[in-house]
Amino acid sequence: MAELKALFLNCTLKTSPAASNTEALARRVVEWFDRMQVESEIVRIVDYNVPFGVSSYEGEGDEWPLILDKVKAADILVICTPIWFGVRSSVCQLVIERLDGTYNERNDRGQYPLYNKVAGVVVTGNEDGAHSAAETTLFNMTHLGCAVPPNADTYWVGDAGPGPSYIEAGGENHAYTQRTTRWMAHNLVHLARILKANPIPAEGNTFDEETRHPLHNG
Amino acid sequence: MAELKALFLNCTLKTSPAASNTEALARRVVEWFDRMQVESEIVRIVDYNVPFGVSSYEGEGDEWPLILDKVKAADILVICTPIWFGVRSSVCQLVIERLDGTYNERNDRGQYPLYNKVAGVVVTGNEDGAHSAAETTLFNMTHLGCAVPPNADTYWVGDAGPGPSYIEAGGENHAYTQRTTRWMAHNLVHLARILKANPIPAEGNTFDEETRHPLHNG
Amino acid sequence: MAELKALFLNCTLKTSPAASNTEALARRVVEWFDRMQVESEIVRIVDYNVPFGVSSYEGEGDEWPLILDKVKAADILVICTPIWFGVRSSVCQLVIERLDGTYNERNDRGQYPLYNKVAGVVVTGNEDGAHSAAETTLFNMTHLGCAVPPNADTYWVGDAGPGPSYIEAGGENHAYTQRTTRWMAHNLVHLARILKANPIPAEGNTFDEETRHPLHNG
Amino acid sequence: MAELKALFLNCTLKTSPAASNTEALARRVVEWFDRMQVESEIVRIVDYNVPFGVSSYEGEGDEWPLILDKVKAADILVICTPIWFGVRSSVCQLVIERLDGTYNERNDRGQYPLYNKVAGVVVTGNEDGAHSAAETTLFNMTHLGCAVPPNADTYWVGDAGPGPSYIEAGGENHAYTQRTTRWMAHNLVHLARILKANPIPAEGNTFDEETRHPLHNG
Repeated sequence: MAELKALFLNCTLKTSPAASNTEALARRVVEWFDRMQVESEIVRIVDYNVPFGVSSYEGEGDEWPLILDKVKAADILVICTPIWFGVRSSVCQLVIERLDGTYNERNDRGQYPLYNKVAGVVVTGNEDGAHSAAETTLFNMTHLGCAVPPNADTYWVGDAGPGPSYIEAGGENHAYTQRTTRWMAHNLVHLARILKANPIPAEGNTFDEETRHPLHNG
Repeated sequence: MAELKALFLNCTLKTSPAASNTEALARRVVEWFDRMQVESEIVRIVDYNVPFGVSSYEGEGDEWPLILDKVKAADILVICTPIWFGVRSSVCQLVIERLDGTYNERNDRGQYPLYNKVAGVVVTGNEDGAHSAAETTLFNMTHLGCAVPPNADTYWVGDAGPGPSYIEAGGENHAYTQRTTRWMAHNLVHLARILKANPIPAEGNTFDEETRHPLHNG
Repeated sequence: MAELKALFLNCTLKTSPAASNTEALARRVVEWFDRMQVESEIVRIVDYNVPFGVSSYEGEGDEWPLILDKVKAADILVICTPIWFGVRSSVCQLVIERLDGTYNERNDRGQYPLYNKVAGVVVTGNEDGAHSAAETTLFNMTHLGCAVPPNADTYWVGDAGPGPSYIEAGGENHAYTQRTTRWMAHNLVHLARILKANPIPAEGNTFDEETRHPLHNG
Repeated sequence: MAELKALFLNCTLKTSPAASNTEALARRVVEWFDRMQVESEIVRIVDYNVPFGVSSYEGEGDEWPLILDKVKAADILVICTPIWFGVRSSVCQLVIERLDGTYNERNDRGQYPLYNKVAGVVVTGNEDGAHSAAETTLFNMTHLGCAVPPNADTYWVGDAGPGPSYIEAGGENHAYTQRTTRWMAHNLVHLARILKANPIPAEGNTFDEETRHPLHNG
């Protein structure tokens, strides 16, 4: 039986069955998870009807609630994005915007519902932009409640300018990306296990406490 | 006896004894740490002779080694920066660049020396730029080996354009910044305690393992 | 008769007729343009069917070509975006991604089709993120061929944390935003007029020249 | 006689005579300028005593005023920076912070003193971060008063992870970087010439006008 569940949100612009370079790199992470009793699911966002918005339900036909259920059931969240114009994709930004809706919910301890989940990112691009895509995304995930282990990202980019993408370029044999993939996969699992056994207590990080124990207004 | 040690690196541009808005907000975090048996030290970088560079020792007169010793002895690292031109200060970037030298060292488990420390950020500015300063800095700290808890940043900024800074504006009474200060302080301590009792194991995140257990070249 | 044409691409997440704070600020720019014989049109992207992609036509039902025609006919392009999670909106990123298709076209001088247009940005948010949204967007527009005058952006943001948006907060009376709106509007028109009378010559900035006059391989 | 003056501010961390990869790429731009009757000067910031600060003179020994004089005398400003941790260098951020002092000055038309200058950037790094370094820097320069032509940046980066830098990697033969160098050099000169003959008028972009012709308070 799987010990932990990982959800990969693939934010490629291309609907299935088009090949996704970002998914190809995500699958290297899945291989590591397979060895560590972590169950993985990859969701390609553009295969669903996910309208723009900042709530958890944007009206009839909105399939975000299906994805949000998977988000809530996962222990590990991996946001996977291509780079376009030096930053994360529009689909990735859309996913983050839709997660805004979770700010209105609480877990059973009174924390944001993404507390005690861990987050990582996978980024691919022809060139340049991985740091930007990763840093914005991981930071957003900490705001939403996730913890981030050391070396929580893996990426592949080619050198300056247009060029082949991850699959065509043989990125799976790129030594640096192999290393970061290994480190990221292990550290996500390590921290997810640690937090599952030792959750972040609901002390000092809930709304309820504010009115009960204000620091500066007492 | 203090249970944990926190080191605040204040990256203001102003030498002591000039008032630092960023330090004023950092002191709100210290107040919380005081209540939680965490020993705090604030180091103002520009009070030391810290030359530009990417090594841990840049030659005679370099006082970075003094600061680096404090970094290594801390359980919690809080990078504190003002915003200038929408991003973190030059001094903050200098600190991150000097930490590059730690990539050449290992802890006793073979990991980067900042592994099993937790990182947070404090940002102040007249206006706009806190997300940028925080996201870049927290991401860099994860690359260096730190873990990041949920809601690991606190900031104060005024509305669009020039205006009073944190101290003059009475930022200490700003409800949102009070909340994020509380959450950040508690979550840094929670995760530091959890990792002290349950360190991230040296599995899948060291250089030594790479030659012994390669995944894709076997 | 209008001397120049300005196109505003409003990248709010909300479809008409919902009030758009970003549009409210854009209309302050329009007021200045009205006084300067510049014809303005505001297009709200989400009122059209614009699928994700990086080409100028993504198949049946794609209404991007209608918008792209307006882009090509304009002298001044103003990208208008709300801030979500500290950066520009998903819709804004989508617009930039779709403009990627113009890299495959040339104007009658052999340059990218956006050459000799000028670009500006309008940004609104509850708080923090305007510099990030503006800098990424203006930079992307220079890659696509636009020129950027001094002080080419105007934004309104509130202080740290959630709060009222531009309309509710009375942002139209915010002195700094009034100033940047005035400066931006005038400088866009100044540079558009200058470039209309003195276009950037097709020397050193076309693909055709590369094979004819290589510098380093001769 | 030189028609235009270009000033390159090289923001490497290394003092002379250490080889600077960023300067090596800057020299490719200089070669183009040489052909176009543009006089070039490269200033390596760390060879001067430039303390941290946000004024134009930070006290005895401050050599920034020497550099600022060159800035004011130039028609074309090229900010040259290496990438460290995915963003521009601390020295580059320092330069931008020191330029803050020019906000207190006016040219003889009442505009910021950098009005009617044009700005470009040169970026080099082992990998990833060129978009971030370029976009932040160009945006800051527009705030300070510069105009930015199309394709105003050139950069070289290698693929993901550590690796050889521009010089060692033979970046001068990299086709994409050769192209962007050519385009950037030409467009900076084109726009500088155009603005020299047709300066941006002091209409709608000065402080004096605000009290005389307010739009919204009349």
